[in-house]
Amino acid sequence: MRGKILQNRLHLLVCSRRSTMKNIAIVGATGLAGRELLKLIHLRDFPLRHIKLFASQQSAGRVIRDSGQSFDVQSIRGDMFDDIDIAFFAVDGELSRRLAPLARASGAIVIDKSSAFRMDPHVPLVIPEINSDAIRAHAGIIASPNCSTTIMLTGLWPLLERFGASRIIVSTYQSMSGGGAGLVEGFEKSVKMYVEGRDTGPLFNNVTPHIDAFDAGGNSGEETKMVEESRKILAMPDLPISATCVRVPILRGHSMAINIEFPGSPPVSPEEARALIRDFDNGIRLMDEPDHGVYPMPINTNGEEFCAVGRIRKDTSSSNGLCLWISGDNLWKGAALNALQIAEKLA
Amino acid sequence: MRGKILQNRLHLLVCSRRSTMKNIAIVGATGLAGRELLKLIHLRDFPLRHIKLFASQQSAGRVIRDSGQSFDVQSIRGDMFDDIDIAFFAVDGELSRRLAPLARASGAIVIDKSSAFRMDPHVPLVIPEINSDAIRAHAGIIASPNCSTTIMLTGLWPLLERFGASRIIVSTYQSMSGGGAGLVEGFEKSVKMYVEGRDTGPLFNNVTPHIDAFDAGGNSGEETKMVEESRKILAMPDLPISATCVRVPILRGHSMAINIEFPGSPPVSPEEARALIRDFDNGIRLMDEPDHGVYPMPINTNGEEFCAVGRIRKDTSSSNGLCLWISGDNLWKGAALNALQIAEKLA
Repeated sequence: MRGKILQNRLHLLVCSRRSTMKNIAIVGATGLAGRELLKLIHLRDFPLRHIKLFASQQSAGRVIRDSGQSFDVQSIRGDMFDDIDIAFFAVDGELSRRLAPLARASGAIVIDKSSAFRMDPHVPLVIPEINSDAIRAHAGIIASPNCSTTIMLTGLWPLLERFGASRIIVSTYQSMSGGGAGLVEGFEKSVKMYVEGRDTGPLFNNVTPHIDAFDAGGNSGEETKMVEESRKILAMPDLPISATCVRVPILRGHSMAINIEFPGSPPVSPEEARALIRDFDNGIRLMDEPDHGVYPMPINTNGEEFCAVGRIRKDTSSSNGLCLWISGDNLWKGAALNALQIAEKLA
Repeated sequence: MRGKILQNRLHLLVCSRRSTMKNIAIVGATGLAGRELLKLIHLRDFPLRHIKLFASQQSAGRVIRDSGQSFDVQSIRGDMFDDIDIAFFAVDGELSRRLAPLARASGAIVIDKSSAFRMDPHVPLVIPEINSDAIRAHAGIIASPNCSTTIMLTGLWPLLERFGASRIIVSTYQSMSGGGAGLVEGFEKSVKMYVEGRDTGPLFNNVTPHIDAFDAGGNSGEETKMVEESRKILAMPDLPISATCVRVPILRGHSMAINIEFPGSPPVSPEEARALIRDFDNGIRLMDEPDHGVYPMPINTNGEEFCAVGRIRKDTSSSNGLCLWISGDNLWKGAALNALQIAEKLA
């Protein structure tokens, strides 16, 4: 009798495991974020039944090796989403806009890394640590935010959740990989040319306050994304927030200097903020012993799942403000990891 | 009779030129700022009678070539300032503190690039475009501000002069040369190691929010300098100002993202600010056509005497605020050029 019960339980477990196992597609599988997504699917042991990788005509036919397995990269075609449960899009907004309806029509749920649908009121824009509840309202598409927005809000969340915010000012230090494989390649070429004593062009020995196109008000696309996406994710449509987004000559890892002000009094103390972040323990890590050289830096967060928060101090130019410094891996939490975490919530 | 008058006039001209010609010493002549100072003395045709170069024991005996001439580097010794009119100090604070009294006792006026005397109430802290009048009150020592302070205030001055400021928030992107020749050498080594596929250490592929030692409040020395020196130069002892200072992996040129708020109303418009900066024409240049790729960057300001100001836009998180982006050559306006401009005012 006990053996029978155990057998039934095992059978149920296998069935429930099988029913949650997913057929996955990655569109843009050969790009920087796509590659990291495949890696993370294996690292995090995502309940995977089958995976299909897609890329543009130039990359189709390639074989990607990951975790000891080989995967053929297929070209984009009409029946690509047949039998797919979750389709990750790690391509540009234009391609997302073109292919997402196809995926949806095939019954797949789209998790989109592009900016195509983020501000669509019918599309949830999700950082799972912050607003995973929003996923429920999806109508076939869920958007993952811009890399800098994701890293900033993940790092600030314990403070935002407890105290809210009356103003945020952020200046970013964004790596080349945020601009895609082409930019990384160009930068690596420039570094090599520098060592060879040749003219390097503007990618080496330079910083560039220009990420994405400028609008009539002089804000770059990246700056507008940080402002608008933060307001949507936090459900604070009037949050006063100002961003300056800058490309710095490093390969991987985004950092940001943040001045945040809180409503009310008494002022939030650095000690209080540190304790909240230390105890939160969900996607972030406190690194705040500057005297011992401990603060967030790209080399501390690349290939890590957490965003690091440190350099927490009183902003003496405000009655209730703090300065903070946050670093995170733009290809992981800023892109592939956040998208995968959304899928994990779905699964 | 006319010939006689002309001859007298010429004689007077020669005498007056000769009487303003100066005997100069550069202490720290083999360092990055010292080398640029020697170059600028020639480039700007400073009224020079004689120049002596000094450096530490290790560098003494070297020969420096500049503008087709050779200069012996002498070691520091008791009679080094005999006959010197102006002694430039481009060394660390400790050495400045030790040698400045010696220079003063010999009758030389010290122009000090270190932080040793900047906050001394008896020492003028001078950016000539802003407060050259302060030079008059000197008692043998005049201090030149920290590189980031100098570049920020030079860039902001037309706005500060016209509107004042009720708050300044700045995040810096500072180059390796701001940390001296040793840091530049370490960075160049790291770049080479990267190209060779070896482990690079923390100077490559990284940004570091740590310039100078931290105080009990968690501010770095560089951040405190930007705050305190700005208040002194502007004679605004209570100015609310907050700085985050960050080293980025470039060789030369400091940049900074600035949010500035102004008192009163109506708000200062970006157009108004642009016009003021365009017309100021004293040490700064407007570079603000982002749609055409025109904005300040290190590659636009290295080896230039101006600080560049651009990316001027409304700070929508404030009722009367602007965002700006400033770049400047940390070795020129941030160091050697500002010191030389002080000497030119003296001469």
